Amino acid sequence: MDKWMQAAIDEATKSLDQGGIPIGSVLVYQDRIIGRGHNQRIQKGSSILHGEMDALENAGRQPAAVYKACTLYTTLSPCTMCSGAILLYGIPKVVIGENRTFMGAESLLEQNGVSLTVLQDEICQGLMQRFIRENPKLWKEDIGE
Amino acid sequence: MDKWMQAAIDEATKSLDQGGIPIGSVLVYQDRIIGRGHNQRIQKGSSILHGEMDALENAGRQPAAVYKACTLYTTLSPCTMCSGAILLYGIPKVVIGENRTFMGAESLLEQNGVSLTVLQDEICQGLMQRFIRENPKLWKEDIGE
Repeated sequence: MDKWMQAAIDEATKSLDQGGIPIGSVLVYQDRIIGRGHNQRIQKGSSILHGEMDALENAGRQPAAVYKACTLYTTLSPCTMCSGAILLYGIPKVVIGENRTFMGAESLLEQNGVSLTVLQDEICQGLMQRFIRENPKLWKEDIGE
Repeated sequence: MDKWMQAAIDEATKSLDQGGIPIGSVLVYQDRIIGRGHNQRIQKGSSILHGEMDALENAGRQPAAVYKACTLYTTLSPCTMCSGAILLYGIPKVVIGENRTFMGAESLLEQNGVSLTVLQDEICQGLMQRFIRENPKLWKEDIGE
């Protein structure tokens, strides 16, 4: 297991332990994590703190040159909002745990030159499959359905 | 002046008074504001709380049916991140104060069926023109440049 994806999974698991949606993310710059986060819909009543957004927010204000040398790791394919944030800051590489339980805006990212790696990781899939099965309404809320 | 755009401008002005970036937004549902906000880059050290995101966050968790009957008012053309959030929640209508100082992802919104109205309001333009002239580095940071 890639150590950065493991860190994203650790964030997803932390969220699950808190009663939240198990999606985690880390922002990596020059071989270190500068922001980590997880979905905060339940924990903070947030409609915008998806895992990726929480990681970006926790990274604080960064110069453009930093974002442009970052890789974002996320346990689940990024939705349109998170993909839009990736494009805003010009993050060039995204590593995705899986896209089978939810396919985000990957085509939009690719059209704009973002390099995507999809791991189809079984732990990431298992976390989401179980969560969606047990909490279908919550999950739909998180993706605007 | 449209009263909802006036409320968005009030948010932008509030941000300016706080030393922040003068962009404001309100989310309107059934003829009342359910979320209002402004750019929080300076005030909260936030990289994700653009005006539109702050308004969405302050609206709290809403059912999908609510978002799908909302209009979002924003003093400035929404960037890719904010546009992605609009698409995530299926907000069908966006009223934009102006798009001359910054053109956001309007084509992405239109391609996805979002109805846009651009007012080219002189107050909105004046707020941004002056801010950008006096704070070019801050402004570039806010749009990832």
